[in-house]
Amino acid sequence: MTAVIPAVILQSPPATWPARAVIREVGLRDGLQSIRTIVPTEQKKAWIRAAHAAGQREIEVGSFVPARLLPQLADTGELVAFARSLPGLFASVLVPNLRGAEAAIDSGADLMIVPLSASHAHSLANLRKTPDDVVAEVARIRAARDAAGSRTLIEGGVGTAFGCTLQGHVQPEEVLRLMQALLDAGADRVSLADTVGYADPRAVRELFERAMAIAGDRFWCGHFHDTRGLGLANVLAALQAGVTRFDACLAGIGGCPHAPGASGNVATEDLAYMLSSMEIDTGVDIGALLALREQVADWLAGETLHGTLWRAGIPRTLATGTRRVAA
Amino acid sequence: MTAVIPAVILQSPPATWPARAVIREVGLRDGLQSIRTIVPTEQKKAWIRAAHAAGQREIEVGSFVPARLLPQLADTGELVAFARSLPGLFASVLVPNLRGAEAAIDSGADLMIVPLSASHAHSLANLRKTPDDVVAEVARIRAARDAAGSRTLIEGGVGTAFGCTLQGHVQPEEVLRLMQALLDAGADRVSLADTVGYADPRAVRELFERAMAIAGDRFWCGHFHDTRGLGLANVLAALQAGVTRFDACLAGIGGCPHAPGASGNVATEDLAYMLSSMEIDTGVDIGALLALREQVADWLAGETLHGTLWRAGIPRTLATGTRRVAA
Repeated sequence: MTAVIPAVILQSPPATWPARAVIREVGLRDGLQSIRTIVPTEQKKAWIRAAHAAGQREIEVGSFVPARLLPQLADTGELVAFARSLPGLFASVLVPNLRGAEAAIDSGADLMIVPLSASHAHSLANLRKTPDDVVAEVARIRAARDAAGSRTLIEGGVGTAFGCTLQGHVQPEEVLRLMQALLDAGADRVSLADTVGYADPRAVRELFERAMAIAGDRFWCGHFHDTRGLGLANVLAALQAGVTRFDACLAGIGGCPHAPGASGNVATEDLAYMLSSMEIDTGVDIGALLALREQVADWLAGETLHGTLWRAGIPRTLATGTRRVAA
Repeated sequence: MTAVIPAVILQSPPATWPARAVIREVGLRDGLQSIRTIVPTEQKKAWIRAAHAAGQREIEVGSFVPARLLPQLADTGELVAFARSLPGLFASVLVPNLRGAEAAIDSGADLMIVPLSASHAHSLANLRKTPDDVVAEVARIRAARDAAGSRTLIEGGVGTAFGCTLQGHVQPEEVLRLMQALLDAGADRVSLADTVGYADPRAVRELFERAMAIAGDRFWCGHFHDTRGLGLANVLAALQAGVTRFDACLAGIGGCPHAPGASGNVATEDLAYMLSSMEIDTGVDIGALLALREQVADWLAGETLHGTLWRAGIPRTLATGTRRVAA
């Protein structure tokens, strides 16, 4: 039989690429919180120190949640203090509520992320609050921050932005309504997260374009899980929508509570490699990152790790200088 | 410290997406040729039958190379005959030279792919010919095909199009020169392949746009390995350059001879999922593909498989109908 040839070739307009992008390391929070092994504080400090030495300048070091809920992250205050001792390092933490925010303000963190789940079902199950309750909490956090004269930025992170395992579909209109509500409530920054790996590049492009149009330079970060293999393709789509900051976990740790063995966040080393190969400067030394990955893999022996670059290594073409200079 | 916010948001123009795309299954050739386990002909037929039942309509069933070189693919003639017995199935084979092409013509294959390596070093090491020798061979193959009154299409596949492990950089100009030479020598179709996983989305977009401008509707296929995790991101970039046919291997089999354990081709099931989630019709039933993957994993017990979707499964949002209808 004869295969069909398309009569018209459908080509997107030429892409524009930013000169720089930021990878925010979230392995110490989003990664470790779903891993059984308790990583000692000294190892976490060694991780932060090595990530900083490898050129990473934004790290989410932990979460101010009750230690009985997440003993893995009980040392967050100490890690903020340590991170702030490293030159030029911007230290973020996650806070679930006003109480956590007060701890974050006390710690002197540069930024605190307040997670909101756009899926009502997921929000009730995970945070025991409706999304609009979280918006109200952000208003209280903003008031507390301002009253304390603190400079800790508030980031409202809208999760399950592409659907969730409990509720299924989440309407883009609801995601954007909540993002706008977070801005109105006093969030300095907003982000979107594909918490369960339901996003695809087309949906990412569409939603992030609308989000950027609303939030402008207050749009902060794209957070993608690689649960179904589309993590880096989704980053690429967000990059084309104008996003230049992405969360990632070294070795792709983090997983998905609903799918044992499934991948976690996009792997820092793979993302750094993709951006670097595209000549988008991240300031990160990929060789140093791969060495750190080996160290972290050793600390997390027995845990499932992810990522792809580490097996094959850095291509000759990248190691010997920029591809485009030679081309 | 305060993180820097970009003053100007750089957004690419809106993307356009095709309504349909074709996934050509190459697992039985590119996949199996680098796997030790010899898969019996009956299992290969069962694979082809199930892939066809799952909606796949283009399959590369094998390679006409001397059986002593690749005993794994010695049954190619029988597989072409079997594939042609299935309604609407377009059967491709790889042929390294005129002798293989004569066998392909005799078999009645719908299409024969002649691989050319744009890297001179890789070409000499793997094919024992220069790239221009391969172009000359394509001219002889075209003459033989026409003399035989055969309708078997000739595809010239330019490999190592983004560099290679032996030579490092390969100039885009050389890739495009060789592609043009293949067309001039009588190739009905041309393709580009990132044989060793050196491509990135920016390089793909640039090279494929230029290739499409030269070859128009004679440009046939994008072939990406996932060696460094960028496989699907590279597909996405090629899709935006107007390419609508992609090679893939079920379970991402294939590997990279230079990096033990490294991923092979993009995984058919992950690619089908990405396209389907983007509402680009491939005609493929992903559930049936995942069931076939389990079967193939059983046949290939002990071999390293890849792919991501199979762990987490199909999202609720895809299973319950199209996302955009609900949105």
